[in-house]
Amino acid sequence: MSHPHPELGPPPPLPRDALRIVALGGLGEIGRNMTVLEYDGKLLVIDCGVLFPEEEQPGVDLILPDFEYLRGRLDDVEAIVLTHGHEDHIGGVPFLLRERNDIPLVGSRLTLAFLSAKLGEHRIKPELVQVAEGERHTFGSFDLEFFAVNHSIPDALAVGVRTPAGNLLHTGDFKMDQLPLDNRITDLGGFARFGSEGVDLLLSDSTNAEVPGFVTSERDISGVIDNVFAKAEKRVIVACFASHIHRVQQVLDAALAHGRKVAFVGRSMVRNMNIARELGYLKVPAGLLVDPRDLDELPSDEVVLVCTGSQGEPMAALSRMANRDHQIHIEPGDTVILASSLIPGNENSVNRVINGLTRWGAKVVHKGNALVHVSGHAPAGELLYVLNMVRPRNFMPIHGEWRHLRAHAQLAVLSGVPEDRVVIAEDGVVVDLHEGRARITGVVQAGYVYVDGTSVGDVTEAALKDRRILGEEGFISVVIVVESTTGKLIGEPQIHTRGAGIDSEAYDDVIPKIQETLERAAAEGVSDTAQLRQLVRRSIGRWVNESYRRRPMLVPVVVEV
Amino acid sequence: MSHPHPELGPPPPLPRDALRIVALGGLGEIGRNMTVLEYDGKLLVIDCGVLFPEEEQPGVDLILPDFEYLRGRLDDVEAIVLTHGHEDHIGGVPFLLRERNDIPLVGSRLTLAFLSAKLGEHRIKPELVQVAEGERHTFGSFDLEFFAVNHSIPDALAVGVRTPAGNLLHTGDFKMDQLPLDNRITDLGGFARFGSEGVDLLLSDSTNAEVPGFVTSERDISGVIDNVFAKAEKRVIVACFASHIHRVQQVLDAALAHGRKVAFVGRSMVRNMNIARELGYLKVPAGLLVDPRDLDELPSDEVVLVCTGSQGEPMAALSRMANRDHQIHIEPGDTVILASSLIPGNENSVNRVINGLTRWGAKVVHKGNALVHVSGHAPAGELLYVLNMVRPRNFMPIHGEWRHLRAHAQLAVLSGVPEDRVVIAEDGVVVDLHEGRARITGVVQAGYVYVDGTSVGDVTEAALKDRRILGEEGFISVVIVVESTTGKLIGEPQIHTRGAGIDSEAYDDVIPKIQETLERAAAEGVSDTAQLRQLVRRSIGRWVNESYRRRPMLVPVVVEV
Repeated sequence: MSHPHPELGPPPPLPRDALRIVALGGLGEIGRNMTVLEYDGKLLVIDCGVLFPEEEQPGVDLILPDFEYLRGRLDDVEAIVLTHGHEDHIGGVPFLLRERNDIPLVGSRLTLAFLSAKLGEHRIKPELVQVAEGERHTFGSFDLEFFAVNHSIPDALAVGVRTPAGNLLHTGDFKMDQLPLDNRITDLGGFARFGSEGVDLLLSDSTNAEVPGFVTSERDISGVIDNVFAKAEKRVIVACFASHIHRVQQVLDAALAHGRKVAFVGRSMVRNMNIARELGYLKVPAGLLVDPRDLDELPSDEVVLVCTGSQGEPMAALSRMANRDHQIHIEPGDTVILASSLIPGNENSVNRVINGLTRWGAKVVHKGNALVHVSGHAPAGELLYVLNMVRPRNFMPIHGEWRHLRAHAQLAVLSGVPEDRVVIAEDGVVVDLHEGRARITGVVQAGYVYVDGTSVGDVTEAALKDRRILGEEGFISVVIVVESTTGKLIGEPQIHTRGAGIDSEAYDDVIPKIQETLERAAAEGVSDTAQLRQLVRRSIGRWVNESYRRRPMLVPVVVEV
Repeated sequence: MSHPHPELGPPPPLPRDALRIVALGGLGEIGRNMTVLEYDGKLLVIDCGVLFPEEEQPGVDLILPDFEYLRGRLDDVEAIVLTHGHEDHIGGVPFLLRERNDIPLVGSRLTLAFLSAKLGEHRIKPELVQVAEGERHTFGSFDLEFFAVNHSIPDALAVGVRTPAGNLLHTGDFKMDQLPLDNRITDLGGFARFGSEGVDLLLSDSTNAEVPGFVTSERDISGVIDNVFAKAEKRVIVACFASHIHRVQQVLDAALAHGRKVAFVGRSMVRNMNIARELGYLKVPAGLLVDPRDLDELPSDEVVLVCTGSQGEPMAALSRMANRDHQIHIEPGDTVILASSLIPGNENSVNRVINGLTRWGAKVVHKGNALVHVSGHAPAGELLYVLNMVRPRNFMPIHGEWRHLRAHAQLAVLSGVPEDRVVIAEDGVVVDLHEGRARITGVVQAGYVYVDGTSVGDVTEAALKDRRILGEEGFISVVIVVESTTGKLIGEPQIHTRGAGIDSEAYDDVIPKIQETLERAAAEGVSDTAQLRQLVRRSIGRWVNESYRRRPMLVPVVVEV
């Protein structure tokens, strides 16, 4: 198996009979999935998602793949294939289309509906190519075949890619629930057929590669939800992802069975459920839905609210209910169901929400105490089925952090893929499939691109480093006004601090020190502002370190008049 | 059961025949445990711990209980009882002793040894009173009896308090491993005896009240560790808490069995293991330990490193190894064992460490994939044993967040404590035991006190709010120099931004706007600096919002010359 190659350089030119695979996201991280295939000078993009920032990226709204690798070659892109409608697969599309807006977007009916709604918000009218499982479509030299896969959103696809340089299978995100609510199972038979034809490279979802065994069926959750409804004394509030149509269907079914009305709360929930209902993915019995504003007229034991916020997002309805900062006040006897996974990184915020709801007397049902969620990703037992059905000549784990990629690589080796045919790549690592063999040949730029407010890329790593320092230590700014020719101080230095935990009374200790330093400098004929700034910085830095043992950001400002 | 009482005011004077209980920490949070008992004007403190900050408290080193409730009454404190040697029970003692340094400190042999080492670092020589299980000691009107409890550190104690106003049992932190490595089990028989005498109020550890069932014995971990050692190809690196002497003992035993030498890495690990060894709590076979500097001379399959960093602490050895920022380079074939719990809030940093180690080729064994840790806290099954043995007249869950306190309260009700005798209190809530009945009677100040660098309390909530804004958005500072009498601008406004993601070239857009605003103000005769500051703030704020949709901190500075 390949280990990290810090010594990699730019890749060599691609031989004419080779297929190049470059992931710009999704390898070494969970999110912003994007894979670029290249054959004979033409490109095919599979997915274009976003990553949600962690505490290491303070203040950032979204993280995009770096499109630099595609710039200057956008006209060579034959299509963007979207495997399903989750944000980490489609969220980057509006930003890529800003650079070329007529790239054909290929996906299933629901995927394109979610994508169109998103693009509409960005005022982009896209070129859409709707496809379905079992179909074949050709885009330039890329001959694509689509396979049904089961995931935590309906209508997900895997994509087989036939090229003269070899065949590739990209699973997208999938699991193998054998009794899914919509009876649409992952097409393992199709994988097997494609495998018999010969799959030179398998790219497969690694998210749950560390988890042994098999998923529990979504169907098993229905009984649990029904049980919670049966015992609920007052309102039932269900928080889940706004894209999890099957979970919402289960809630609607339970509400109907227990004589409750349902209100959707939150913009994305309302928008997605409207789309799902119009397209027939969500079945809503007549009279079941009510407007949230009409809830007060119903007795509390006839009410169900469906909202987002299951990840503890501070602005979502659920967090605000937990903080008594929402028109819906949690009362003793209310039941809250967090019917979703806990995405790693959100533990603290979810815990805060659970404690807040509990404090006001709600009973909180979550995956820690009841089977109210199953993962959308195949664990190890199912991944082995895929490896054994496809029997790929080469294997490359995708969609996962290092721990997941390695675990999946290990499974591939156990299933019989030779160790030297298993390629563990990170984002930007170039993998060439040539003469039946996948090899790492180089690396291209694939860093994080930050979206903050309306701008893309303005917020750099340097700005984030500043934010981390400011967020931990605050800053001290010292403004001095000097006579431009002599460098002589005019008036007193002005000190401003924020977040440094320094009382303004303490400024009196340091102002004389700064004045003294500047007097000495003036006497020595120092009048250069850069030098003066440096002197002020040192003087204030020494003081704050000695007095407080802290290291706030130091911002000396010298104004010449 | 009591619900939160936002309407609570200061408590009434304490009747002479009543016992008052005020937790200054540990209720509504996991950490900074501290309970103050009052009888007849005299006080007894049980534990005085610290809380480790989360992302909501950026840059803070430690969080202390607020000692304000004790100020002015420190001479009435008869003693501080320390139930065991963990930081969340003893870490606040040096800070309290700064206010009165001769308060008797009461604890077991190991607890006092750990505490003395800590106080030595603060250059405090304390008054120590060593006690042991089975003993009774009187401090003023407080007649104390100590009971052995089993926890994730040796020599932990529960404390029974007899007063003329009633009897109280405080469990400290405990679990009920029936086959602990040191054969020192929780003295359930003692609890039962005290219960027969009559326990008016039970205060019991709620940390694991949501977890059903019983703990796995520490003994079961030995076999798993032995197995990992047997399979390890190269070095074994074990990360665990520096206070978990039994876990380290298991590692030493496995090392001996597999012909490996052991090196301790890290200041706290070395210090604690020296103390534990001197006092006989850790048995170290002759010749087993080596200096970390001598490791290079041993073949890698004869080496064990024991270090801290199991919580992903960025400065600990393990994180630095994961980042290739430590003299010990992880190589393919190394095995790393994270032999500790994952404290909520540390998920991200631990995940980063696991990914980093995996990336360099280490096999990482952790509680997610092997039984290499068991909790130190009793789950629901064991808590019921305690409730049933003690049969308390009143019950108050301690040591937990709201979710844990409520779950424990529920267990108490199920075990037969009447609902109106179960008191759920938060930090600062005053509970009076009077005429055999515990009731909430008021609330006192019990906020967070932040330690940052050398100072206690300088960093306030306001400073942390500033840090959160700065950390998310950065700042823009605008310095203008004005003629003091006319308010007329001298020279150009100077703009400085950090972390705001604004390029300095963009300043040219806004400087004319500021100048124009100030010219207009000067024409209107505005020369007051506060007004000028406000004008500058508005002008820059409008620009940044319209151009970037961001909200950095705005710091206008007006200098008059």
